[in-house]
Amino acid sequence: MLVRLMYASRAVPTLDQDELHNILRQSKHNNPQHGITGLLCYSSGIFIQALEGGRSAVSRLYGRIAADPRHGELILLNYEEIGERRFAGWAMGQVNMGRLNPALLLKYSATATLDPYSVSGKASMALFDELVATASVMC
Amino acid sequence: MLVRLMYASRAVPTLDQDELHNILRQSKHNNPQHGITGLLCYSSGIFIQALEGGRSAVSRLYGRIAADPRHGELILLNYEEIGERRFAGWAMGQVNMGRLNPALLLKYSATATLDPYSVSGKASMALFDELVATASVMC
Amino acid sequence: MLVRLMYASRAVPTLDQDELHNILRQSKHNNPQHGITGLLCYSSGIFIQALEGGRSAVSRLYGRIAADPRHGELILLNYEEIGERRFAGWAMGQVNMGRLNPALLLKYSATATLDPYSVSGKASMALFDELVATASVMC
Amino acid sequence: MLVRLMYASRAVPTLDQDELHNILRQSKHNNPQHGITGLLCYSSGIFIQALEGGRSAVSRLYGRIAADPRHGELILLNYEEIGERRFAGWAMGQVNMGRLNPALLLKYSATATLDPYSVSGKASMALFDELVATASVMC
Amino acid sequence: MLVRLMYASRAVPTLDQDELHNILRQSKHNNPQHGITGLLCYSSGIFIQALEGGRSAVSRLYGRIAADPRHGELILLNYEEIGERRFAGWAMGQVNMGRLNPALLLKYSATATLDPYSVSGKASMALFDELVATASVMC
Amino acid sequence: MLVRLMYASRAVPTLDQDELHNILRQSKHNNPQHGITGLLCYSSGIFIQALEGGRSAVSRLYGRIAADPRHGELILLNYEEIGERRFAGWAMGQVNMGRLNPALLLKYSATATLDPYSVSGKASMALFDELVATASVMC
Amino acid sequence: MLVRLMYASRAVPTLDQDELHNILRQSKHNNPQHGITGLLCYSSGIFIQALEGGRSAVSRLYGRIAADPRHGELILLNYEEIGERRFAGWAMGQVNMGRLNPALLLKYSATATLDPYSVSGKASMALFDELVATASVMC
Amino acid sequence: MLVRLMYASRAVPTLDQDELHNILRQSKHNNPQHGITGLLCYSSGIFIQALEGGRSAVSRLYGRIAADPRHGELILLNYEEIGERRFAGWAMGQVNMGRLNPALLLKYSATATLDPYSVSGKASMALFDELVATASVMC
Amino acid sequence: MLVRLMYASRAVPTLDQDELHNILRQSKHNNPQHGITGLLCYSSGIFIQALEGGRSAVSRLYGRIAADPRHGELILLNYEEIGERRFAGWAMGQVNMGRLNPALLLKYSATATLDPYSVSGKASMALFDELVATASVMC
Amino acid sequence: MLVRLMYASRAVPTLDQDELHNILRQSKHNNPQHGITGLLCYSSGIFIQALEGGRSAVSRLYGRIAADPRHGELILLNYEEIGERRFAGWAMGQVNMGRLNPALLLKYSATATLDPYSVSGKASMALFDELVATASVMC
Ligand SMILES: Cc1cc2nc3c(=O)[nH]c(=O)nc-3n(C[C@H](O)[C@H](O)[C@H](O)COP(=O)(O)O)c2cc1C
Ligand SMILES: Cc1cc2nc3c(=O)[nH]c(=O)nc-3n(C[C@H](O)[C@H](O)[C@H](O)COP(=O)(O)O)c2cc1C
Ligand SMILES: Cc1cc2nc3c(=O)[nH]c(=O)nc-3n(C[C@H](O)[C@H](O)[C@H](O)COP(=O)(O)O)c2cc1C
Ligand SMILES: Cc1cc2nc3c(=O)[nH]c(=O)nc-3n(C[C@H](O)[C@H](O)[C@H](O)COP(=O)(O)O)c2cc1C
Ligand SMILES: Cc1cc2nc3c(=O)[nH]c(=O)nc-3n(C[C@H](O)[C@H](O)[C@H](O)COP(=O)(O)O)c2cc1C
Ligand SMILES: Cc1cc2nc3c(=O)[nH]c(=O)nc-3n(C[C@H](O)[C@H](O)[C@H](O)COP(=O)(O)O)c2cc1C
Ligand SMILES: Cc1cc2nc3c(=O)[nH]c(=O)nc-3n(C[C@H](O)[C@H](O)[C@H](O)COP(=O)(O)O)c2cc1C
Ligand SMILES: Cc1cc2nc3c(=O)[nH]c(=O)nc-3n(C[C@H](O)[C@H](O)[C@H](O)COP(=O)(O)O)c2cc1C
Ligand SMILES: Cc1cc2nc3c(=O)[nH]c(=O)nc-3n(C[C@H](O)[C@H](O)[C@H](O)COP(=O)(O)O)c2cc1C
Ligand SMILES: Cc1cc2nc3c(=O)[nH]c(=O)nc-3n(C[C@H](O)[C@H](O)[C@H](O)COP(=O)(O)O)c2cc1C
Repeated sequence: MLVRLMYASRAVPTLDQDELHNILRQSKHNNPQHGITGLLCYSSGIFIQALEGGRSAVSRLYGRIAADPRHGELILLNYEEIGERRFAGWAMGQVNMGRLNPALLLKYSATATLDPYSVSGKASMALFDELVATASVMC
Repeated sequence: MLVRLMYASRAVPTLDQDELHNILRQSKHNNPQHGITGLLCYSSGIFIQALEGGRSAVSRLYGRIAADPRHGELILLNYEEIGERRFAGWAMGQVNMGRLNPALLLKYSATATLDPYSVSGKASMALFDELVATASVMC
Repeated sequence: MLVRLMYASRAVPTLDQDELHNILRQSKHNNPQHGITGLLCYSSGIFIQALEGGRSAVSRLYGRIAADPRHGELILLNYEEIGERRFAGWAMGQVNMGRLNPALLLKYSATATLDPYSVSGKASMALFDELVATASVMC
Repeated sequence: MLVRLMYASRAVPTLDQDELHNILRQSKHNNPQHGITGLLCYSSGIFIQALEGGRSAVSRLYGRIAADPRHGELILLNYEEIGERRFAGWAMGQVNMGRLNPALLLKYSATATLDPYSVSGKASMALFDELVATASVMC
Repeated sequence: MLVRLMYASRAVPTLDQDELHNILRQSKHNNPQHGITGLLCYSSGIFIQALEGGRSAVSRLYGRIAADPRHGELILLNYEEIGERRFAGWAMGQVNMGRLNPALLLKYSATATLDPYSVSGKASMALFDELVATASVMC
Repeated sequence: MLVRLMYASRAVPTLDQDELHNILRQSKHNNPQHGITGLLCYSSGIFIQALEGGRSAVSRLYGRIAADPRHGELILLNYEEIGERRFAGWAMGQVNMGRLNPALLLKYSATATLDPYSVSGKASMALFDELVATASVMC
Repeated sequence: MLVRLMYASRAVPTLDQDELHNILRQSKHNNPQHGITGLLCYSSGIFIQALEGGRSAVSRLYGRIAADPRHGELILLNYEEIGERRFAGWAMGQVNMGRLNPALLLKYSATATLDPYSVSGKASMALFDELVATASVMC
Repeated sequence: MLVRLMYASRAVPTLDQDELHNILRQSKHNNPQHGITGLLCYSSGIFIQALEGGRSAVSRLYGRIAADPRHGELILLNYEEIGERRFAGWAMGQVNMGRLNPALLLKYSATATLDPYSVSGKASMALFDELVATASVMC
Repeated sequence: MLVRLMYASRAVPTLDQDELHNILRQSKHNNPQHGITGLLCYSSGIFIQALEGGRSAVSRLYGRIAADPRHGELILLNYEEIGERRFAGWAMGQVNMGRLNPALLLKYSATATLDPYSVSGKASMALFDELVATASVMC
Repeated sequence: MLVRLMYASRAVPTLDQDELHNILRQSKHNNPQHGITGLLCYSSGIFIQALEGGRSAVSRLYGRIAADPRHGELILLNYEEIGERRFAGWAMGQVNMGRLNPALLLKYSATATLDPYSVSGKASMALFDELVATASVMC
């Protein structure tokens, strides 16, 4: 039972570059042992993360992440049983975003800000896909 | 953004009738304030619960439930944005199950035991629907 | 070119029973001359109205209604060219609503209040259809 | 809730080049604050405008435009909830039309004149799309 | 090659009951020889007629009818090759209409008058079908 | 209401090149005033003509053509309400056919002759489309 | 490989009731040995027959029937590989037709005569089905 | 992973009523331990059996059955991953067939004998379903 | 009514190159008079032929071919009413086959021999299409 | 009746390179006589094999392979009646796999190991297809 889960959250105000690297280091260290792959976007205090893997492993990891004090206000954007992964090559790829293009943000939401809280999961996925396609992913 | 989330978990071995009532009492007390509705099945040490409501409210509650020490090994079975609720009439209905009918369990899984961990989310939903249809739901 | 338009608005706080009757009286007097038919729901300070008719007539009337000081914050919920009307028998039927059933409100939205502002036009139409089906319509 | 609205109207006979520039200047100044994007065509005394944005913002702006004395006889051509915008890059692009090609006008209507009043919303959208594709859009 | 053709026309102002009977008598006399069947509606100076039969026979008859001075302004509403007839039992049935129900007229058009000239062929066919279903047809 | 009508007919035996030019001259002179466009094929004594335009204009013109003594035995091949024209650039284009390719004629009918009378309207349209695509159209 | 074949033919002018009985006697005697089932209609000098069975058996029988001097001008109306038979109960059922109802004949063809030669195989099958449904079949 | 497998085989010539009972006794004894359910048809020396259960259990049992010397010439008729079982109530139901109805056999094959070897798996399943529906199943 | 018919047959053992040429000569001489087109494959004593044309002409020719003593065991592979021909350019094209590629034969049947008798009509058509595509057709 | 069967099994621990060559030699020797074609993958002690051919031949061979002591724990992954083969060119091709790419394994399953036992037949087929596409097949 392979699944993909996508959620958004708000980083605590004090989160800095170092803490972000810690999160990615932990992820890249832990995920291969559990067959987890995925991508993490971070911009303007908002995380959007996609997690792929066995159903139990993903559910367990999501539980752990949900309890992590470095972010809060998690909302589930999408969850589905899948036939195949899309990010099989990344233990946890980092989507490298500079300043976001306002026209891209406007394309899927009512204002030119990254706000997964006010749009549907499908719109967030579409935006996520465009970000991934146009930004560079670092292993 | 209305969503429905369904998950399964294993109760801690010591969970008794009283604790179960506590859970239901809490749920019925809390859920209306957050616009949450749903159903809870319990049998042979396994919970299957469906939660409906606004996306943030459901995500937040699921985070809280995931951290509840009275059960563990949560797996997400299904999650989707919905057009309308199916359990709008229950703050948290209790599906009243006596001994489960083996033929019904066999219908959706490889052995005659309630084991959402080894079947797809779709199969669990189908079983859940039949349980709800044939058992009585208590408000 | 036959169309159907549906919108929601908030009545001014001072709107009373008399003013509501005035609106309906005006509507029933004016609409037949322009081939307009429809239904008007009013509850807890919120209007939801469906207008059917020729495209120009409906557009013109909507412009007039939008400028009416007895309500504000109009949002268009739905608009489409139609093959046939659904409310051909009512110059402007009044949907007679007592206290709204909370389970019905929950069915299509995140909280048990009538709030077309936070749900999709499709959900409002579904709610509207159930209201019409279960309430009585007065000519 | 992202929507796209399209309407047509007739300019007042006295509308001149200056007034047209005023409208565009106002639009480009106001729209970004409300997350509105879109295009405006003007030819032979007829406006066709597409507005995209959050549902409330678009509804509110349409109400204001409907009351603007510089044009009249508005008809709604199309309105729908959308997954993504098509004109995300223009606060209000101006479709720069010289003399319209009669064959293009004939393609979607019974006579070789720009007359959105006598054709369906779908035909107007198709014509609009061809105009946009073949004319140049100025930011 | 079996076809069905439907058209509308305006009777000359002087057309009276006698002339109408002449038309029907001619039709019932001629049609069986050419394998033609169909229905004729007449109301408020407007004819709507459906003709079924072999393609040549229907085309020839339509040419003759188009030249008949007892009516004018013919518009073709619908024409299609069909697998089977719908009015096989009537050489030319007369749809017996008293005063038309305004709600029925409104259902398919912008005003409560019988005006096939301002609606699509599909709408006229739908109206025609309801007239046939609710009125009595005389052989 | 834009429509396309297609019919076939047999020219009177005496029809010569001059008369054909007369027909085309009349068509090109009259059609633009009524928003009519289309194509005319002539071969081996058979006309196939496609007429596009407003429904009334096309119906009226077809009535006039049906009464024209220069041809006879008209059969309607196809008639439909359309979203857009296909021959918007020709007031009445003349499809310039030399000797017809027998394989092309065989492709859609039982014998290698141009005989719209013995095939379905759909087959005639397909043949017509190939003729148009492979022959040259003169304005 | 189970198939169903349907054809029509014209009986020789001299065919009488006795000869018809001979054909049916032969059919009922031979068909069971070859796994053939079917129905035979005879009216106004025209045969329409449906044959079901293994592909070789049906092909062989059709060859034999095609050479039978008691009829001629055979045309194949339909032939298809089928999943299941429709006439499994009849070695060769005789469709017992008195005078044919003209409205039924008109329903599928241009004139009120039984003429499978001038209509499509699909129309003949539809007529055949109605004959079978309304007439009595004799074993 | 729930699957359903269907196969046919020929019993050895010497198989008698006692041996058949042995097979069923073994099946009813063994299957519940492995979560297997299904039905067994026997007629004229031919077995058709449907087996449902977990993928490994069914594959293992099929391997054992394939090696059983009481029958031979096994052919797989159908195999698919299923969402739910159809024979959840029978450890191994026995389809009780007297003499088979020839018309039923003919319905799905070229001759009136039970011969799964010469028809598609789909046809065998359809026949099997009708047998089950019309015969009685003994637990 | 245009149709396409496809059948297979076995040549008599004594059929030689000369006789094959006779058949083709006759076909090319006769077919154009009846509007027949098609292709003939011959290999290893097996004919597969596709015939296209008017329904009567094809039915008549098939009757004549079925009675031809130069081959036997005809089986109908496919028959359908068609919108357009596929072999309009060949009075009777000869598919020029050297030794057949075993992998191509295996692709559509259980053994590497040309055996239309043991496969479905659809498989024969697919094989036929590949033969035609990869072999050369001689006029 | 052409079918394709796919299964997985575990080789006995002692299976070495020589034994593997024996299996392939036997397969290439036997299969052509029975019209069998297919591919065999071997990696990390796991076989995945696809067999194509006539239904009886494939069923018989599968029975023989299932009893072969050189492997065990067979599970059927897929079985279907097919219109055409995909491996018609290989009596039994050997998929030549070096060390498997972990990202490819992760793509279709929860961990980076080749484990057809824990994924659906469809996922195994997809993985198999990618292996075949990216590895080299040796005749
Ligand atoms: C936004 C975010 C994303 C995270 N993603 C992952 C992840 O993909 N894998 C992971 O193991 N931990 C992830 N973590 C960290 C977990 O919450 C938790 O701290 C970590 O799994 C504990 O690992 P440790 O046992 O190595 O300390 C993430 C945390 C945050 C805030
Ligand atoms: C299986 C299970 C289901 C639960 N369902 C709900 C629920 O629907 N709503 C809820 O508020 N709490 C639910 N809880 C309890 C929460 O985990 C948590 O204890 C509770 O929300 C805390 O509420 P309190 O603040 O009233 O103590 C559930 C717990 C378990 C173990
Ligand atoms: C919620 C609401 C709904 C209304 N509906 C209609 C209507 O259906 N028809 C109508 O003519 N006026 C309607 N009105 C009133 C118009 O805004 C306006 O006052 C009226 O058309 C003016 O008509 P009068 O010229 O008869 O005064 C509505 C007003 C409100 C606030
Ligand atoms: C055809 C037409 C299109 C217009 N489009 C817009 C627009 O896109 N955005 C906008 O703010 N105003 C638009 N306006 C102007 C508004 O009607 C109104 O005058 C303006 O919003 C008032 O803005 P202000 O507060 O800056 O004066 C349009 C007016 C017309 C006649
Ligand atoms: C509205 C209308 C409908 C008609 N329908 C038919 C008809 O169905 N069949 C017919 O033969 N004539 C019909 N006619 C009459 C023909 O136009 C024409 O007068 C008639 O066919 C001449 O027939 P006669 O040769 O018997 O005089 C109709 C005329 C009108 C005005
Ligand atoms: C085959 C054929 C096609 C014709 N096509 C047209 C046409 O497209 N437009 C047109 O105005 N007249 C057409 N005509 C001529 C009309 O029948 C009629 O003579 C003409 O409209 C009268 O025009 P006038 O008033 O200019 O003399 C056609 C005639 C024939 C025989
Ligand atoms: C219209 C028609 C239908 C026939 N149908 C059948 C049939 O279903 N089965 C059959 O064996 N013969 C049928 N025959 C007769 C065959 O053409 C042929 O005479 C017969 O099979 C020879 O059988 P015998 O060998 O018993 O003389 C039919 C003949 C005609 C004219
Ligand atoms: C037609 C047929 C169907 C059978 N079906 C089953 C079955 O459903 N379950 C089963 O355990 N054995 C079945 N068997 C018997 C097995 O082949 C085998 O003999 C049996 O599983 C051995 O069981 P034992 O260990 O109890 O002797 C079947 C045998 C035949 C010939
Ligand atoms: C395999 C095969 C295919 C044939 N194809 C045709 C054909 O396409 N057209 C044709 O006229 N005759 C064809 N024939 C020949 C006819 O059976 C018959 O002999 C011929 O039509 C008689 O023609 P004739 O009158 O010129 O002698 C074919 C014969 C065989 C054996
Ligand atoms: C994984 C595996 C795949 C096999 N595939 C085939 C095969 O495709 N064809 C075949 O004839 N034998 C195959 N065999 C061998 C058979 O099990 C059996 O040993 C062989 O058919 C006996 O052939 P023989 O009669 O030539 O000894 C396979 C064996 C194994 C373990």
